[in-house]
Amino acid sequence: MTEVFDLDPRLSAETVLITRWQVSRVLLQDDARFPWLILVPQRAGMSELFDLEPGDRLQLAREIDAAAQALKAETGALKINVGALGNIVRQLHVHIVARREGDAAWPGPVWGKGTREPMTLEARAALVTRLQQRFGGAFS
Amino acid sequence: MTEVFDLDPRLSAETVLITRWQVSRVLLQDDARFPWLILVPQRAGMSELFDLEPGDRLQLAREIDAAAQALKAETGALKINVGALGNIVRQLHVHIVARREGDAAWPGPVWGKGTREPMTLEARAALVTRLQQRFGGAFS
Repeated sequence: MTEVFDLDPRLSAETVLITRWQVSRVLLQDDARFPWLILVPQRAGMSELFDLEPGDRLQLAREIDAAAQALKAETGALKINVGALGNIVRQLHVHIVARREGDAAWPGPVWGKGTREPMTLEARAALVTRLQQRFGGAFS
Repeated sequence: MTEVFDLDPRLSAETVLITRWQVSRVLLQDDARFPWLILVPQRAGMSELFDLEPGDRLQLAREIDAAAQALKAETGALKINVGALGNIVRQLHVHIVARREGDAAWPGPVWGKGTREPMTLEARAALVTRLQQRFGGAFS
């Protein structure tokens, strides 16, 4: 059986697509509380970072950094949080979250904290467009 | 002024040294609740992953994976959690935590959850030795 990459429905339910890079599908978590990207390596059957082929793993590191730098530039965040947890959704995915003092989880982690607050459609579309412009042709 | 790498005292207070790799100082968080490593890139003035020079950044990715694989093999963990947060301690450091169903924070993140429980000196020394053996000459 050939495994085909298919985005976990729990990830697709709470995100919108920003772009596809060489390794990652780049998603925006639809949560007005935190500017929050999720990178999902488009490879079937991965759950740990070390499951990736070495070349994909290093490219993922580059993609994490590009996403984090763009998110910091877009938001002026004090700190970027990067996490690959997967305790609930086992499909390998990497969170990249812009944090500011006094945000809804500060200084704790965002995962499992409170309840997601969907953005307005207008705000979400505008943020997706701005991030797409910042990413430009990176890794496409 | 030349900046010299110096481990943040809040990291050194709660950890013991396992080994030094090409980029990272590899520490064991002294917490009996979770098998927990912390990798600290031995470079001054870093707070975000993307602050590292590209070569160091890719080597850090390799070191994260080697540490995570050894920790999984040592503990039989269900899932490894990897996180670079830095909301409290700004010096760049990467957490690598072995998780099992029903552990003290499951399925949430470990950061900011409950209170650290120091290991016995005997258990801690034994775990450090076993991890050193698993790491062997990697990246030394």
